[in-house]
Amino acid sequence: MSTPTPTEKDGKKAAKQAKQGNKQQQQQKQGGNKNVTVPTGNQDGISVKKSEDFSQWYQEVVTKGSLIEYYNEISGFYILRPAAMHIWNEIRDWFSAKTRELDVEETSFPMFLSSTSLEKEKAHVEGFAPELAWVTKAGDKDLEVPVAVRPTSEAVMYPYYAKWIRSHRDLPLKLQQWCSVVRWEAKQTTPFLRAREFLWQEGHTAHLTEKLAEEEVLAILDLYADVYEKLLAVPVVKGKKTEAEKFAGGYWTSTVESFIPTNGRGIQGATSHALGQNFSKMFDITVEDPDNKGKHLNVWQNSWGLSTRVIGVMVMVHGDDKGLVLPPRVARTQVVVLPVGITAKTTEEVRKDLHDKIKDLAADLKKAKVWDSKVRVEVDDRDNYSPGFKFAEHEKNGVCLRLEFGPKDAANSVVAYSRRDTGEKGSIPLAEIATQVPALLEKIQEDMYKKAEAAFSSHRLVLSDWEKVVPALDDRNVVIIPSCTEIACEEHIKTITKGDKKELGPDGKLQPTMGMKSLCIPLEQPEGIVPGETKCLNPDCGKDAVKWVMFGRSY
Amino acid sequence: MSTPTPTEKDGKKAAKQAKQGNKQQQQQKQGGNKNVTVPTGNQDGISVKKSEDFSQWYQEVVTKGSLIEYYNEISGFYILRPAAMHIWNEIRDWFSAKTRELDVEETSFPMFLSSTSLEKEKAHVEGFAPELAWVTKAGDKDLEVPVAVRPTSEAVMYPYYAKWIRSHRDLPLKLQQWCSVVRWEAKQTTPFLRAREFLWQEGHTAHLTEKLAEEEVLAILDLYADVYEKLLAVPVVKGKKTEAEKFAGGYWTSTVESFIPTNGRGIQGATSHALGQNFSKMFDITVEDPDNKGKHLNVWQNSWGLSTRVIGVMVMVHGDDKGLVLPPRVARTQVVVLPVGITAKTTEEVRKDLHDKIKDLAADLKKAKVWDSKVRVEVDDRDNYSPGFKFAEHEKNGVCLRLEFGPKDAANSVVAYSRRDTGEKGSIPLAEIATQVPALLEKIQEDMYKKAEAAFSSHRLVLSDWEKVVPALDDRNVVIIPSCTEIACEEHIKTITKGDKKELGPDGKLQPTMGMKSLCIPLEQPEGIVPGETKCLNPDCGKDAVKWVMFGRSY
Repeated sequence: MSTPTPTEKDGKKAAKQAKQGNKQQQQQKQGGNKNVTVPTGNQDGISVKKSEDFSQWYQEVVTKGSLIEYYNEISGFYILRPAAMHIWNEIRDWFSAKTRELDVEETSFPMFLSSTSLEKEKAHVEGFAPELAWVTKAGDKDLEVPVAVRPTSEAVMYPYYAKWIRSHRDLPLKLQQWCSVVRWEAKQTTPFLRAREFLWQEGHTAHLTEKLAEEEVLAILDLYADVYEKLLAVPVVKGKKTEAEKFAGGYWTSTVESFIPTNGRGIQGATSHALGQNFSKMFDITVEDPDNKGKHLNVWQNSWGLSTRVIGVMVMVHGDDKGLVLPPRVARTQVVVLPVGITAKTTEEVRKDLHDKIKDLAADLKKAKVWDSKVRVEVDDRDNYSPGFKFAEHEKNGVCLRLEFGPKDAANSVVAYSRRDTGEKGSIPLAEIATQVPALLEKIQEDMYKKAEAAFSSHRLVLSDWEKVVPALDDRNVVIIPSCTEIACEEHIKTITKGDKKELGPDGKLQPTMGMKSLCIPLEQPEGIVPGETKCLNPDCGKDAVKWVMFGRSY
Repeated sequence: MSTPTPTEKDGKKAAKQAKQGNKQQQQQKQGGNKNVTVPTGNQDGISVKKSEDFSQWYQEVVTKGSLIEYYNEISGFYILRPAAMHIWNEIRDWFSAKTRELDVEETSFPMFLSSTSLEKEKAHVEGFAPELAWVTKAGDKDLEVPVAVRPTSEAVMYPYYAKWIRSHRDLPLKLQQWCSVVRWEAKQTTPFLRAREFLWQEGHTAHLTEKLAEEEVLAILDLYADVYEKLLAVPVVKGKKTEAEKFAGGYWTSTVESFIPTNGRGIQGATSHALGQNFSKMFDITVEDPDNKGKHLNVWQNSWGLSTRVIGVMVMVHGDDKGLVLPPRVARTQVVVLPVGITAKTTEEVRKDLHDKIKDLAADLKKAKVWDSKVRVEVDDRDNYSPGFKFAEHEKNGVCLRLEFGPKDAANSVVAYSRRDTGEKGSIPLAEIATQVPALLEKIQEDMYKKAEAAFSSHRLVLSDWEKVVPALDDRNVVIIPSCTEIACEEHIKTITKGDKKELGPDGKLQPTMGMKSLCIPLEQPEGIVPGETKCLNPDCGKDAVKWVMFGRSY
């Protein structure tokens, strides 16, 4: 099975379709049947099933669910619409508060790097060089020295760390910024997952000792895991990257790795890097050793980043054939309330009564709290759409809970509900909505996580038999196998696990199913590696296994 | 009197000085007297008086007060340090909440504009063209079509407004984004006031009618005035820009104008633009007229922006010879608590008791609230600095209130305080700190505003006699005079109000004192213009006056 990765190509197709749709409506607007109410908004449903054309499905879900608009003017760029920004801001607020508790402060550095700064840290920059966007002109004048838009800010910031850190008393220095960075990818781009500009937070800290730095790397990794698991209801595996996959120029890299059940691909969630003293040597960031007067130490640095990619992972994990399924914790609209059961025969008085009661109900709900925030409720009382049309629209947008209120409900003092995640229906006494709705939202969040966790854990196979590896991949699993963790071995594994089937590659061309690469060395290790006895599972390797390593076909 | 504008030149001088200072310390660190504790942080005081060298003073205050670091790598760019980001985030949180009440939602558009989009709205773009930063290369490949970094986002966004607005039911559309924009100024740059990259919020909205759009322009203007007056304690005058000064491509522009008493300059605070239908015609943003089926209307648009310039204005208005004076509402540290009266004779027991009590005191204070936030308290118990050294440092950083606690205070169960704004000293019973400190902070905020308001209103002269205008400007006033409000007249006024003295101009060269330009047509008009009778005050004009217009030498 080889569900292809959603690509830019599909994006263009969809943008074209959208344009055509737009044109049709324009025509309707400008002439056409005047008795027909032209529906507005993204009224088209998702045209393909998630299991049948994942790529097209993803692209439709993020655009029709109003998270993303393709920026047609420049390829590889996307517009984040309010529903996406809401999710990002929920994450931002949560993560800012948590990092403030760790004494991390916010800063804002310029978006440009001079070519001279780049010289300083070639090893690190080499990886980014092909993707740097260069400003060479201002107005109609050529710049004397071209400047690059930051792909990440180590080289922008660290000269100032050298200036600001004058003594061990200035340590730790812990700064982060929320900004966008630019990586002019040659590869096919995909909304959220791979874009030429994306939003992220980047933390950059300096510490006196390796131990203090290491503690922070893992504390941040825990926060990243919480962003996925607690906010987005997406399970992750925490681990370290192997040498082959660690951050260029760093010491070691920790990561949270997630999983897309539909195509069995692993996907890197966020990384927290121990930079060691590599950068502090390049940028001359030293302090006098407090325990050894006169001797100087290079500081120990970390950098860590989480980007809007998280939103893409969340969409892929939870979405279904009707569209987005958003976890209540981050959804802009948690609850929609709408009138039902109104017919041509319904009297004006009954209509008015229904509308008034819906208003009251929504007002009560808005005062209720869930996760220390007010419940986010919308009333949809548009009278130019049928309830069925509205149901589909709110489902596509991933609204977590639908409350329907009709004359019968009014008579019984209840409201009917429908859960977006399971479709489960039921009714709630009006007197209890302020407690039952928050409880339902919490239940939805919990159930979404449980479902995703079951999917990931059942597709994460611990294998000690090489023969089972490729079939497991073909069955959309990732595998955890004994490994020597060496670079050459991983390269070889990538080659020998390529499949026979053809699939769309990241460059948009058909190619053999990709080989697997290492995702991480899970912090939580299975048992069974006997030192000096257990061998690396790669049949052509022969070295001793040192760790269980999670491998998979991946984004 | 002609206090020059702080310029980049001074910035460079200071950066050089800082570097030298750094070097000295580096030498101290690396060799030097081992018994001397090397002070860390920005320990140098402000070297000049605000009234004597305003330019140098400003530059020292923003750097030594740790708001700004000059980005030496690329001229005209600045690093916003945590104390500055705290102020900006206070503004952001407040303004976001207020605009959410107006149903404005957050979005994030790409930072790049294609040259093709720019073609569409030449009139508007012409003003920005000389300042556009052009990306022409990605990696080592030339881009087929160069892209410019946004100087503002009308041309980035409005093609999508045309796509999203399909019916009058999609109106109003109200979006804003918080981002940075780039304007590669040829003029001398100044931290916060004129930088080549700066942070701002930009709101872009579309409405069905002129009236609805106009209401919003003024509602936003009120919020901008509140940012200055309520958060930053800086008084402003609300008004409309004259034709000569309005936004390129817009319909009319409203503005809040502030004033720097030290040099008598006016300064534009923030602008809220009615774009009319100009852009909706360029970008073809239309809906069917709900009152006239089949007929199409161009939507009415607004755009409005507030940038980190606000922080610079605040610094200039409130700062004094000791450094920053920050309004408590936005200060990162509102209160610092420190031990005093410890001598060589103080016993370990007394020291410990003092430290414990200070901790308790700070813990109590941190639970107290002011303006619905927790009081922001720091304890400074570093024992390698004298109290006097610490006092100076916290004063330079603008900490609003200093609490001193020594053995005598402990004995009397009081804490001594010193206000940063007035220097006023007093004492507070320990039992009352949780109520008295918030009350004092509110009083400081109020007094800072009153003082600044008195300075502005006493320097805002309503004149009906042309002979008094230039002397008034020379005396560091702005003037409100009867005007025909026409472009040619303003041009002429600018010429005939140039002074004889030389001063540093915005290009860093000595030039005659600048002429005055119109700042705004105040919404609150003085009385006395008799239609058909009162003449424009420009002696060479002769036309009828239509409005009182505020003129001044300005930033």
